[in-house]
Amino acid sequence: MASDGFRPLDEKSLAEYIKATPSLSSKLGNQVDDFQIKEVGDGNLNFVYIVTSPSGSCVIKQALPYIRCIGESWPMTKERAYFEAVTLKEHGRLCPDHVPEVYHFDRAMSLIGMRYLEPPHIILRKGLIAGIEYPLLAEHISEYMARTLFFTSLLYRTTTEHKQSVAEFCGNVELCRLTEKVVFSDPYKVSQYNHWTSPYLDRDAEAVREDNTLKLEVAELKSIFCERAQALIHGDLHTGSVMVTSDSTQVIDPEFAFYGPMGFDIGAFIGNLILAFFAQDGHADPKNDRKAYKDWLLRTIEETWNLFQKKFTALWDKHKDGFGEAYLPTIYNNPQLQQLVKQKYMSDLFHDTLGFGAAKMIRRIVGVAHVEDFESIADAGIRADCERRALNFAKLLLTERRKFQGITEVTSAIPKVHS
Amino acid sequence: MASDGFRPLDEKSLAEYIKATPSLSSKLGNQVDDFQIKEVGDGNLNFVYIVTSPSGSCVIKQALPYIRCIGESWPMTKERAYFEAVTLKEHGRLCPDHVPEVYHFDRAMSLIGMRYLEPPHIILRKGLIAGIEYPLLAEHISEYMARTLFFTSLLYRTTTEHKQSVAEFCGNVELCRLTEKVVFSDPYKVSQYNHWTSPYLDRDAEAVREDNTLKLEVAELKSIFCERAQALIHGDLHTGSVMVTSDSTQVIDPEFAFYGPMGFDIGAFIGNLILAFFAQDGHADPKNDRKAYKDWLLRTIEETWNLFQKKFTALWDKHKDGFGEAYLPTIYNNPQLQQLVKQKYMSDLFHDTLGFGAAKMIRRIVGVAHVEDFESIADAGIRADCERRALNFAKLLLTERRKFQGITEVTSAIPKVHS
Ligand SMILES: Nc1ncnc2c1ncn2[C@@H]1O[C@H](COP(=O)(O)OP(=O)(O)O)[C@@H](O)[C@H]1O
Ligand SMILES: Nc1ncnc2c1ncn2[C@@H]1O[C@H](COP(=O)(O)OP(=O)(O)O)[C@@H](O)[C@H]1O
Ligand SMILES: [Mg+2]
Ligand SMILES: [Mg+2]
Ligand SMILES: [Mg+2]
Ligand SMILES: [Mg+2]
Ligand SMILES: [Mg+2]
Repeated sequence: MASDGFRPLDEKSLAEYIKATPSLSSKLGNQVDDFQIKEVGDGNLNFVYIVTSPSGSCVIKQALPYIRCIGESWPMTKERAYFEAVTLKEHGRLCPDHVPEVYHFDRAMSLIGMRYLEPPHIILRKGLIAGIEYPLLAEHISEYMARTLFFTSLLYRTTTEHKQSVAEFCGNVELCRLTEKVVFSDPYKVSQYNHWTSPYLDRDAEAVREDNTLKLEVAELKSIFCERAQALIHGDLHTGSVMVTSDSTQVIDPEFAFYGPMGFDIGAFIGNLILAFFAQDGHADPKNDRKAYKDWLLRTIEETWNLFQKKFTALWDKHKDGFGEAYLPTIYNNPQLQQLVKQKYMSDLFHDTLGFGAAKMIRRIVGVAHVEDFESIADAGIRADCERRALNFAKLLLTERRKFQGITEVTSAIPKVHS
Repeated sequence: MASDGFRPLDEKSLAEYIKATPSLSSKLGNQVDDFQIKEVGDGNLNFVYIVTSPSGSCVIKQALPYIRCIGESWPMTKERAYFEAVTLKEHGRLCPDHVPEVYHFDRAMSLIGMRYLEPPHIILRKGLIAGIEYPLLAEHISEYMARTLFFTSLLYRTTTEHKQSVAEFCGNVELCRLTEKVVFSDPYKVSQYNHWTSPYLDRDAEAVREDNTLKLEVAELKSIFCERAQALIHGDLHTGSVMVTSDSTQVIDPEFAFYGPMGFDIGAFIGNLILAFFAQDGHADPKNDRKAYKDWLLRTIEETWNLFQKKFTALWDKHKDGFGEAYLPTIYNNPQLQQLVKQKYMSDLFHDTLGFGAAKMIRRIVGVAHVEDFESIADAGIRADCERRALNFAKLLLTERRKFQGITEVTSAIPKVHS
């Protein structure tokens, strides 16, 4: 199709592509007739194919030069696939238990071949809507976040390694701009694709657009997002970017990755758990009031932060005599000072996390892209009630985040919110 | 000499170089015998030649692959000349009145040809030691800082422009590492090249190395320095990087430039004025008690910040409907909110400025590179007294900076410091 070697694939041409590509045909064989190919992309941006054959399986993800859920009217660089592949590999190296293996990457085709996360893996968000408990979720996701964020930060790396990686990921600017727009800007102004449960939330959406305090806070978060190269973040770590079974947790879809603030990832995940909490009343039925499930969600929020903090600071302790530029051992090697700097670092990170989490919640209620947690509540009045409570809590979190001293203060405030 | 096209020049080979280089010989002619060449590099890193001829003049600056004042035992990339040239041109484009014009740049030779800032231009630091008042200094330097910082920040630029420039200046990592070392690390540990007025300040230097609160604060500033790409900063804006006459102010030597925190530049300048203040008692003599001069210095510190703030926010007002990503007009276009976000931005920047200024002061008293303001005080006991007052004020500023609400609180605290 195009002279740059790119052509969008479909089920048929993909089969030929696999046959011609040794790193894929070595898994799947080269009998095109044996391939079962199914497009399953339910995400917002890309095309995803599950390919199975008698000899194996894989997932093929291809980026097209526009945003899938909007169409060709919203162009978007297909180079995002490159940054996704680099990040899958880097995060996979740091945390192989929770990132699918990459089998193949073709930059010209914007195409990634990776491990098929076979059933019973499902998207976490769908599990949360179904009311399924994942006893290892907090353990696993905290491990993923602690390892990927710690090892790509200046706590572990030299300035030389850091600046080189920062420079490379500056190339993922189109995706950063998309986040800037949909998370930090659009919800606070009239914007073409914004929507909400109308007419119920008309006044709420308007109130967001007129709230100077919110806008002041969101500007600060946006500037941190744009300017602070703290670690290689996933960049889109909501509950739709995690696939789970009862004993496996896998993080997919890091196409928004760049060197940004750690709190953006942790906040995305926790913020989306809070959204899941507020959606539960919309999923309750006479057989299941979801009360126990809401408690599990709150516990999981607490454990996610607490385990993250524990694992992250344990990595810090373990590598405190390493090459990380941030706290040189010859200056920071006394136990009392170690304690002090860790407390300050984790407290700042906690407040960033709450701020970004809140911003991610708000945009899912009055912005362009909503979440199935709420969208799947059929009764618009009930849905609006759930959304309003989530929105009110997010506003509180965004403006008062510095007053929260620990995660249990957050989880005890959540159930107290009224619409 | 080397296969990469680099050779260190001396007076003789420079003459031949000029003759063979049209952009220089067009200014100076090509009569080698007519050239008067004098090496005047009094800085720490590079070689600087003043070249005059009957038809014109210029300054030639060449970076060698090590740090001049230490020698070949401290290697340093000569690519710094590239970043200096790019920044001279970029800052010169934004503020031509206060940056010398670049005539020529030779990347292979790490060589810059620029306007000779002819006498009576002298290095500002020397003027401050001599007790000379520069009535336009605050006006000029605030103009330079406001324009270079504003126009290279996200207040004016799009994310796309910003990330592209950030990526390029990540290449100046060696110079960033040097700052990390000499400003944010060495003063707080035992380090080979650290020195101070001994034995007078032995206990003071030791106290800095043992002060957990200072170390906690300096870690925060270091992380901002390493991670926050706020604007294209000069990176070394002390009073030795400014040349002045009574009506001209010219900023030279931006080889440390990169995308970093604005407060690092403003703090460098103000911190060095404060050092000049504390040095005055060492320069007083029966004919001149320097009292009036100290008042002028305090006024200049106040005016520098106040005029910077005024000019910077005026640029913001003027360009508020432009393409800057930080505060989109459709969100931030109401006057009350404009006021709020500006207040917060300037207050945060003020506290960054005080923190970085303090860190720059401390390193000049107990670190590797000292300032002539103090070094030129012959009596070691008097010098130590001046330095101790400066050090004590810097420690106060670093740890209590968030309590200062405005610049006059700073300038009224300065004269109250005791040793
Ligand atoms: N490795 C995989 N194994 C199984 N299913 C996957 C895999 N990667 C993606 N999927 C499925 O495809 C959907 C879209 O993938 P995703 O990477 O999130 O694309 P997008 O970038 O468009 O959001 C996921 O929600 C999931 O259902
Ligand atoms: N454009 C110029 N005009 C006149 N003198 C200059 C010029 N540039 C540098 N100098 C002189 O050379 C000295 C060293 O220059 P500088 O750029 O600060 O080098 P370094 O990077 O080694 O510190 C300055 O202190 C000043 O005296
Ligand atoms: Mg997705
Ligand atoms: Mg999200
Ligand atoms: Mg995606
Ligand atoms: Mg210099
Ligand atoms: Mg220099």
